Amino acid sequence: MRVIREEQNGYTLQAGLPALRERVAQDYRHLNLSPDQVIITAGSQEAMYLALMTLVEAGDEVLIPNPGFVAYPTITCMAGGRPTFYQLPASRDFSFDLHDFKLQISSKTKVVVCTSPSNPTGRTLTSEELRSMAHAVGERSDAFIISDEIYRELYYTGERPCSISEFYPRTVLISGLSKSMSMTGWRLGWILGDEAVIRAAHLLHGYVTTCASTISQKAALAAWSNEATEARRETRDIFRRRRDHLLALIRGKCGLRCVTPDGAFYTMVDVSDYGSSVEVAEAMLDAGVVTVPGSAFGSESEGFLRVSFCADLPVLAEGVKRMDSALKARKK
Amino acid sequence: MRVIREEQNGYTLQAGLPALRERVAQDYRHLNLSPDQVIITAGSQEAMYLALMTLVEAGDEVLIPNPGFVAYPTITCMAGGRPTFYQLPASRDFSFDLHDFKLQISSKTKVVVCTSPSNPTGRTLTSEELRSMAHAVGERSDAFIISDEIYRELYYTGERPCSISEFYPRTVLISGLSKSMSMTGWRLGWILGDEAVIRAAHLLHGYVTTCASTISQKAALAAWSNEATEARRETRDIFRRRRDHLLALIRGKCGLRCVTPDGAFYTMVDVSDYGSSVEVAEAMLDAGVVTVPGSAFGSESEGFLRVSFCADLPVLAEGVKRMDSALKARKK
Repeated sequence: MRVIREEQNGYTLQAGLPALRERVAQDYRHLNLSPDQVIITAGSQEAMYLALMTLVEAGDEVLIPNPGFVAYPTITCMAGGRPTFYQLPASRDFSFDLHDFKLQISSKTKVVVCTSPSNPTGRTLTSEELRSMAHAVGERSDAFIISDEIYRELYYTGERPCSISEFYPRTVLISGLSKSMSMTGWRLGWILGDEAVIRAAHLLHGYVTTCASTISQKAALAAWSNEATEARRETRDIFRRRRDHLLALIRGKCGLRCVTPDGAFYTMVDVSDYGSSVEVAEAMLDAGVVTVPGSAFGSESEGFLRVSFCADLPVLAEGVKRMDSALKARKK
Repeated sequence: MRVIREEQNGYTLQAGLPALRERVAQDYRHLNLSPDQVIITAGSQEAMYLALMTLVEAGDEVLIPNPGFVAYPTITCMAGGRPTFYQLPASRDFSFDLHDFKLQISSKTKVVVCTSPSNPTGRTLTSEELRSMAHAVGERSDAFIISDEIYRELYYTGERPCSISEFYPRTVLISGLSKSMSMTGWRLGWILGDEAVIRAAHLLHGYVTTCASTISQKAALAAWSNEATEARRETRDIFRRRRDHLLALIRGKCGLRCVTPDGAFYTMVDVSDYGSSVEVAEAMLDAGVVTVPGSAFGSESEGFLRVSFCADLPVLAEGVKRMDSALKARKK
């Protein structure tokens, strides 16, 4: 009893400010979580690290989107797991392919990673797609789903995207303030979900970082104010204008095919006529434009560049102008 | 070449502010490090995690002080290594025992952990002891030494304690601002040393936390000002007064034996006449005094309590009064 009491003091310190954990828990009201099922982390990157290191044992399969964020397969391998992949077909603008997903999932699947909106594609899964994904997982495995929702507040579809946790209770959620409040440098994220998983993740958290910066934690409370809600709305408007501007330029000026993102701040540009994605990305770098080659995110996005629209309209225009010149020079 | 260029941009972002890494590197001038051999971490806990996860492979032996900080053996086990221990004998107030140290080190030893000043004992190794430790390691193994110097600015011996890196080049150093600047909540630490080790640690750092809070990093620059030097001097004076006050009370009022710490802000109190260290620590908790049972730090400190002097003089006096009553009650 006394030792438990002491542990609970330690828990409060390491897991994060109680007021902050309460607010995060309330954001996922349908899960009915206690604040002790939330850990505040040093950014959502630590949350992802904790989630995979906690859930994955040696030999476990982790089913990851292809294309997807580079950290998923790497951390899976660090944990001794085996990354497997479900295709988001380039030919269908990287939308969800239930048929392929069902083929990849089996009783050996221990964890499924779901990212909506997606980095790198900006595509969002509809509530119907999430529901069918959840159903397929439940039918074929007893896997946990890790839902990476870091881009969930950045959407251009008129409605905030669903969380797969609405359809699948064994979901471990990770998110943070880097994208929704442009607080990247503050390193403020969280992980939440199943009590036993969070208890184990909390233990690891203590040895990895002890706790998130308390300065960042106190600043983070402002993200649950009316002012912050309004700021997120404004940010969405600004990013939507940037998106539309960038897509029009890439399609009109360069005559390239590119994906219309539903959320996040990336588009995938098809540059397969100009060489490998690494070659083209290097040519872009020489022209002073930073992109990421699609191959970094998986085989399915080879031939594409991930192009971000985290810049003002004139900078985007200048970037596209340089891209266009660089591509024309490669054609010669 | 271009990819390297890109990696270097990423390096700067993840490793920490160049100005901060430069200052840290200059603090260890004898090692002649470039700023790229320094990573700024989310507290020294992350630095310790990176150091052990980077250096320890499955089956490797890690030689750890007993008593020592609880995280060393735990992270060693997480990395698949095997903790071994060198005794800091309680009978000699936990001072360094070169004879036992030499018995424990062998060609299987991959890493040696050195902590001076020590948590939990507050004891510091003299430069002669560090030199002989370094010599013993070099003679018997090709181990790396991890030198945990988080308490190095808190000393009561008139002179800043030596770093073992002055005698052993294969030293990986970890430290931070939690103790020296009382910036615990800011989560600002660092790891530095051998180029290949730091490059590998940097890769892991990217997946564990991405980078330390930039707000904390910018605030940290103030630690290299004259004002900060003066603040550290004042802090040492305050802690020395607290130490002397606490030791006098424990010895005089309670009639207990306790260690005179050379640094840090702990003393080890011998309570072996009153029960196991966990039993006595629980009795203290009931009396409203938080201590840590010696058994938490290793077998050698069983029978002791770690008592901190991070409190004002009247609080320390009240604490000792309660300790005394609780111990007298146990004697009945």
